[in-house]
Amino acid sequence: MLYSKLFGKTSKTVSADEESINAQYLIRGGFINKQMAGIYNYLPLGLRVLTKIQNIIREEMLAADANEILMPSLTQEESYKTTGRDNMDVLFRSEGHGGTKYVLNPTHEEVVTPLVQRYVFSYQDLPLGVFQIQNKYRNEARAKSGILRGREFNMKDLYSFHTDEASLNEYYEVMKKVYHKIYDRLGLGELTILTYASGGAFSRYSHEFQTLCAVGEDTIFTCEKCKIGINKEIISEQTTCPECGNVDLVEKNGIEVGNIFKLRTKFSSAFNFKYSDAAGQEQLVEMGCYGMGPSRIMGTLVEVFHDDNGIVWPESVAPFKYHLIALGKEDETFEMAQKLYKTMTANGIEVLFDDRRELTAGAKFADADLLGLPVRMIISKKTLEKQSVEIKKRNSDQSELEPIENYL
Amino acid sequence: MLYSKLFGKTSKTVSADEESINAQYLIRGGFINKQMAGIYNYLPLGLRVLTKIQNIIREEMLAADANEILMPSLTQEESYKTTGRDNMDVLFRSEGHGGTKYVLNPTHEEVVTPLVQRYVFSYQDLPLGVFQIQNKYRNEARAKSGILRGREFNMKDLYSFHTDEASLNEYYEVMKKVYHKIYDRLGLGELTILTYASGGAFSRYSHEFQTLCAVGEDTIFTCEKCKIGINKEIISEQTTCPECGNVDLVEKNGIEVGNIFKLRTKFSSAFNFKYSDAAGQEQLVEMGCYGMGPSRIMGTLVEVFHDDNGIVWPESVAPFKYHLIALGKEDETFEMAQKLYKTMTANGIEVLFDDRRELTAGAKFADADLLGLPVRMIISKKTLEKQSVEIKKRNSDQSELEPIENYL
Repeated sequence: MLYSKLFGKTSKTVSADEESINAQYLIRGGFINKQMAGIYNYLPLGLRVLTKIQNIIREEMLAADANEILMPSLTQEESYKTTGRDNMDVLFRSEGHGGTKYVLNPTHEEVVTPLVQRYVFSYQDLPLGVFQIQNKYRNEARAKSGILRGREFNMKDLYSFHTDEASLNEYYEVMKKVYHKIYDRLGLGELTILTYASGGAFSRYSHEFQTLCAVGEDTIFTCEKCKIGINKEIISEQTTCPECGNVDLVEKNGIEVGNIFKLRTKFSSAFNFKYSDAAGQEQLVEMGCYGMGPSRIMGTLVEVFHDDNGIVWPESVAPFKYHLIALGKEDETFEMAQKLYKTMTANGIEVLFDDRRELTAGAKFADADLLGLPVRMIISKKTLEKQSVEIKKRNSDQSELEPIENYL
Repeated sequence: MLYSKLFGKTSKTVSADEESINAQYLIRGGFINKQMAGIYNYLPLGLRVLTKIQNIIREEMLAADANEILMPSLTQEESYKTTGRDNMDVLFRSEGHGGTKYVLNPTHEEVVTPLVQRYVFSYQDLPLGVFQIQNKYRNEARAKSGILRGREFNMKDLYSFHTDEASLNEYYEVMKKVYHKIYDRLGLGELTILTYASGGAFSRYSHEFQTLCAVGEDTIFTCEKCKIGINKEIISEQTTCPECGNVDLVEKNGIEVGNIFKLRTKFSSAFNFKYSDAAGQEQLVEMGCYGMGPSRIMGTLVEVFHDDNGIVWPESVAPFKYHLIALGKEDETFEMAQKLYKTMTANGIEVLFDDRRELTAGAKFADADLLGLPVRMIISKKTLEKQSVEIKKRNSDQSELEPIENYL
């Protein structure tokens, strides 16, 4: 991509009401732009990051044999009356012609349960996992954490369906591993720990995946040995590490980047969703749900991976790998940069070429740091004399010359 | 994909209120499922088709140097007051904490204009094209045409920004060609014609792309020579072919699969969106908009390409290319089919393998016809004796034996 052709340039300032680091850097870098509180536009750079996060999640969901579907955002309010969730404070509502009452789904249990019910009749149809990657809506009282907590935000939500609790438990344990693998691929593996949180009517605990980060809204007590957390909300009933009994827990802040929950028969009983077992008896379906928010993960990555100059994207989600800069006014340098850009792009390498000729080196370096692509590649009169390019990783202070022919 | 693992099976019946062919076949085939009037769930097969349509459109937009962005569905009602469109009958509205009034965008002029305004200041920043592929919402009085006219539906909307009318006109003509190329790739090229339709305050005409189809809601008068249409809504003022003057026009029905419109300064003047020209003078930005609905196109493809037995997908958007069926009860046949499935899939060929062993040949053939994949591949004891598979294209009555080694 040529920077001159890219919609959404860097800016030095950001509106004063953006308190969070993620919103500040993402807006200044031209990744996102605020529409209104809790609602953002994704510009090309930001959409590339979001899409890469979504694709990593999608790949791991499909590898775990989950079926990808796409449910609507608008749903009839009756479905929420059926489950008794029509009084939720976070529901956005709307009304259509003829007085039809709609809800903008904050999660999709009310949609997916009757949907799956139309196709699943027998124990032979189970277990089944279906997921979607889609926008969700929450009428939040306050929205001040950038894309960490939005009123409109992107979610991957997976729902699993089972004949019995044992099958649910087995799937749930598999999904824990899948989630850890996804965080590993996103560069968050080291910082993200399984955390016990409050359950519901049917299960003692749910589990969150918390990325340790000083600005995280959640307080968790961690067992350093097991890399396990306990959400503050349940610390009074669970005072020791549930895995090893350790009482020496350390209080930390975390950002919830995932949440898995055994719904058991809460929703299947509301919709009377039953299957026939091997003996021909009707039984309620057991369910689990597994959420992960790509837009929140994008914000989390910025909160975790940045320095005073800007973002430091992990390579797996960076909008481009290389940030190519030509220094000086010489045509020869610029032409060689153009050649590099064309060759690398033709070879399938992702390059953002800052082709603005009027800009100073300092301004280009500042933009490169702000955008945070993994590798900065500089070509100048000096490097050309040595038939080289200067390579500097965003997460390192060291730069080195490499033969230009390595990239041609 | 193994059919046994696929969520969303075929069914023989469909609810009586689905009058349209597209909804009937797509629901019976397990591509979509109705959530409520005008609102559908996309099951895995349907999502694959929708995604392929979206990707073809995306590729051509990017090839035309448009920038992909993603705008929100929720927007402040004030923006619609600014443009005077807050009284539109099709607006879904919602209210948030503190009385914040939202609209669910039916189109995105009210979002994209102030968004682009934040980044475009000079004639050097223009022309610029930005597009998104995203869901739209329309509070339609009636919704009875399946996914041809939904209350929640998928759209590609491109907006272009220009210094002057000449630049807008040039871009507009380029986009006409891009649209025709997209319809060609989708298999709709022969049937889709540029149609003159009513303009607005600032331009005499807009242009629609109409796919000729008996069930189309629109009436158009076509010039057979030029392959040009005139929408009935303007036939009283435009009684001859605008290209050749032909008066011998033929009345036909069409489905509007695209719409392009010169907005001129309608929205830039509402938001006071100006740029500095080369002389440093402030000028209003000229705008164009270019819509195309992937979900409506999916429905159109079914309306146009089907027979009494089911859908006949064009290869470019078919959920899989091959529909592999093993006949008979012999393990040998089934095992060879499994081998074919694995080998072809590993080679990047898209195969749906109907691995249900208990089903009759007739039931499998009926499902294959209903799903409408381009190539049916049968393996049986008889074909195996000849080291062959039977190949039959969905759009042909002829089948032929081919050496099995061609696929291994």
